[in-house]
This record gives sequence, structure tokens and C-alpha cells, in this order.
Amino acid sequence: MDERPIGVFDSGVGGLTVVKEIRAILPTEDIVYFGDTARVPYGNKSIPVIRRFCLEIVNFLETMKVKMIVIACNTASALALDHVRRNTVLPVIGVIDPGVRAALRKAPSVNDREKKIGVIGTRATIKSEAYQKRLKRLDSGCSVFAKPCPLFVPIVEENLSDSIIAEQTLNMYLDEFRSLSLDALILACTHYPLLKKSLDIFFDKKVILIDSAEETALEVAEILKAHRISAPSERNGTDEFYVSDSPESFMLVGSQFLKHPLDKVFLEPVWQRTSEK
Amino acid sequence: MDERPIGVFDSGVGGLTVVKEIRAILPTEDIVYFGDTARVPYGNKSIPVIRRFCLEIVNFLETMKVKMIVIACNTASALALDHVRRNTVLPVIGVIDPGVRAALRKAPSVNDREKKIGVIGTRATIKSEAYQKRLKRLDSGCSVFAKPCPLFVPIVEENLSDSIIAEQTLNMYLDEFRSLSLDALILACTHYPLLKKSLDIFFDKKVILIDSAEETALEVAEILKAHRISAPSERNGTDEFYVSDSPESFMLVGSQFLKHPLDKVFLEPVWQRTSEK
Repeated sequence: MDERPIGVFDSGVGGLTVVKEIRAILPTEDIVYFGDTARVPYGNKSIPVIRRFCLEIVNFLETMKVKMIVIACNTASALALDHVRRNTVLPVIGVIDPGVRAALRKAPSVNDREKKIGVIGTRATIKSEAYQKRLKRLDSGCSVFAKPCPLFVPIVEENLSDSIIAEQTLNMYLDEFRSLSLDALILACTHYPLLKKSLDIFFDKKVILIDSAEETALEVAEILKAHRISAPSERNGTDEFYVSDSPESFMLVGSQFLKHPLDKVFLEPVWQRTSEK
Repeated sequence: MDERPIGVFDSGVGGLTVVKEIRAILPTEDIVYFGDTARVPYGNKSIPVIRRFCLEIVNFLETMKVKMIVIACNTASALALDHVRRNTVLPVIGVIDPGVRAALRKAPSVNDREKKIGVIGTRATIKSEAYQKRLKRLDSGCSVFAKPCPLFVPIVEENLSDSIIAEQTLNMYLDEFRSLSLDALILACTHYPLLKKSLDIFFDKKVILIDSAEETALEVAEILKAHRISAPSERNGTDEFYVSDSPESFMLVGSQFLKHPLDKVFLEPVWQRTSEK
């Protein structure tokens, strides 16, 4: 039994989709979330910069006495997971492996035909080829179709996920995917679960959508069990949120992600800790 | 005569619209540009954070021996212009005053009717009320209609300014403006000049668009003349660009803004200078 909180971080609000799923299946766990809202987005930043930002955040989460770390950001998972693991003794998971494994598990096997997996994400995530390589490593026979969709994040953050603009943007990015008969589509960005409804309409529900947030929460549960660090049952887990800028706008946009109002949002400019050292 | 360069900065690529206009009317001047691409966008950051970032950049431009500073970013002009002026001996201008003065000058006076001025920009710029207050101070009789259009920046950066998505987004944000019979519309974000064509179609060319970039360049020329610090004639001005991250993507997007390829783009993480002090 271990009452320490689970540490979750993202470049901004996107990782809250992961918090939502962890909360759903692990109601007794405490969660400390950090959103790097002063430096969001990570999607167009370079590898050394992203790695530096991640270590600053991990240092902060360590001072909050977390028992494990979830990198709830695809860009950071793609570019900094190994780097973070080398710099902490805590168990660390990203969002990529859970999504990849779920896609291969859930994509139906039809007549020995190779599996066709689509991946959509930010430009940095797709360019890193983290998903493509991981899929190929676990199932060398699968075909992977990857497409950056950079406009989806601002559309979700502007609360336009079900608008005509979202529809047009889906058309622009994914028209070519419609004729591919994909078996599964990995939503390789933590913002994208909010586009599920529009994506289901777009694909006429014929493509299985893989929500990395759900899959990551399942992996968190497994890690807690394997390390014997689950919280005691018969308690209610609490959430605390830290951001590097503007708690107000985080609360506003964040409530769309969690489907309930956020309290306990605190300002924490992590870079000050680093430069003070 | 003064051969020192003009210093121009922005949170990212947007300020290049100002560089383009300065280059057009001041061909003999050297320009040093800084784009804070590691920390873009400023539009949703808090005032203390934006002021701190601006001073870091001004310190850098001072080491580059510039003769004046242009804050080619509406958010930074709205929230940090006075703060920057208090912290440097160089002449400093922002993009707000030039746009405001041009709007009042160019909006036609019809039968003593009050002038109707529209302002569109990022959420932070509109919320700061910098334009609204300045317009009212210079012409207390004018009516001001302000509207944040947060999706325009990613649309411009994704090179979708003339797309169906831009058209739908214009409709969403500015439908109410069409019936207002505006006399002028201030493009209060340095990205927006790239939407001029779409805006002209949207308003059927019936609204005078005020391009802050053009107006700011004219003000730069006046300051140089007033301070007697113009470059000698009969020389060709040069451009140098510094960014805090990813010179490659800056070159790619920046070339759309300047309508020609960019060379001389250098990486300069300004925060390292500050933390080293």
C-alpha cells in the first residue's frame, strides 16, 4: 500500500484526458498533474529543449513525492521518455506504447490480411516516427499510415470539436484515409479524444479509434500492481493541478477535458527551481 | 548617419510582416530580428511572464548593438511596451499606436457620423483592451468593436490563409461584423496581414483594412529621421534572424511571410544569457 500520488505531466491541458481515465479506473489514487502552460506547445520545439523542460518538470514532481510518473504528452513521450527514465529512479511510462499495443490487439485479423493502422498526431510526433517504428517492431507485417494534423489542437482548445470547422479540417487532413479501409486509427495526441465523435461520423464508425488516454490509464493500473504501490482501497483519491502560467485559462479549458470544474489549480514556474540550483 | 541595425522582435514568425514592410521602405537599413520560437505563443501567457521574456530579448538585442527596438508583436506591445521603455535607453516602439493612428486617419468621416472601428487579434490582445482604450483616448467619439480570433494564427502558420477552412473561420468570428458597416478594421495581430485577401473577399472590399505592419514601418522611418540615426544612403541593408528554437521550421514558415527564402537564421536561446548572470 502506498498513498503517494501518481505524477502526470503534459505541455498543457491535453494530458487531462489521461487524468480523466486514471480517475475513472483508479478512484482511490491521488494525482498530481503538471501542465507546462507557459511553454506550450511542445509540438514544434527541438529535442534538446523538450528534454530540458521534461527534466525540470520531473524534478518538480519528485519534490511532490510522487510514486510514478506518466508522461501524458505524445511529443514528450516520443522525444524524451528514455531521457527521463535515465534521470529518475521512479517508474515512468509514456502514452505511445499503450496506444501501439492496443491498436495491434484491437485491430481485427481478417483472413490473414496484414493489419492497416493509421496514426494521427502533431507534426513533431509524426515526424519522430515513434509510433511507426514501434508498430513495425511489434508487428513487422502491419502497414502504417501516418498523418500530422496540426490544426486539431487549437480546434479542440477553442471548444470547436463538433463544429463545421472541425468537419472541414477532418476532411482536409483525412480524406485520403477514408479509402484505405483502416483497421484501427491511433489518436496519437492527448487532445484528440475530444474529436472522437466527429471522427466516428467522418469514418461512419468503420474504423476502431484507439484512445491513448484510456490505454495509458490501464497501464498505470498494471504498474501500480506490479510494483505493489497501489493506494489503500476505501479512500477517495484527490487531484491537484500545477501549471507554469495562467491557472485561470487552464481551469477554463481544462473543465472541457474533465467534464467538471477544476479546483486546486496552482501556479508553479518550474524553471525557477532549476535556475536557482 | 548610423549604420547600427534596427532591432525587431516577436514571439515567433509573425513579426516578419513588420520586417517585410521596413525592408520595403528602408532598403539601406540593417535589421536584426529575434523570434522567441521556443516560447511562442505569448497570446495566452500572463503579464509578468511576458515582461520577463521581453526583457531577456531586449538584453540580447542590446548586445547586438541595435539603434532602436521594434516590438513587432501585439501581445507584447499591449502588455510590455512601457516596461521595456523603462528598461532601455534605446527608442522603443510597439505596433499598437501606429495601427490606432492609421485607423482614425484612414476611416472616412461621413456626415459627422461617429467612426466605427473594428479590432481583431489574439485573446490576450483583445482582453488587454490596449487598442480599445487607445482609440477612445485619441477619438472619444468613435465606436470600437473588438473580437478575439484565436484560430487565425494557426491557420496562417499552416499556410491555409486562402482555404475553405479560413473562410469558415472568418464566418464564425466575423459574421456579426458584416452588418456593422465598419469604417476600418485593425488587424491587431502580426499574422493577420496574410489573411487580407480572404478578409477583402469576406467584406466585399467595403471595409478599410489597417495593416499594423505597414503603419509600424512608417513610424520606424519617422523615428530614425527624428533621432538622426538613419543609415547612409547608397548601401544595401542586410537581414539577420535569431530564434530561440528550431531555425528550420522558422525558415520554412518565415519564407511564406517574407515571400522569399530566409538565410542567416541562427539559434540563440536568450534565457541562457539571463540565468548565467
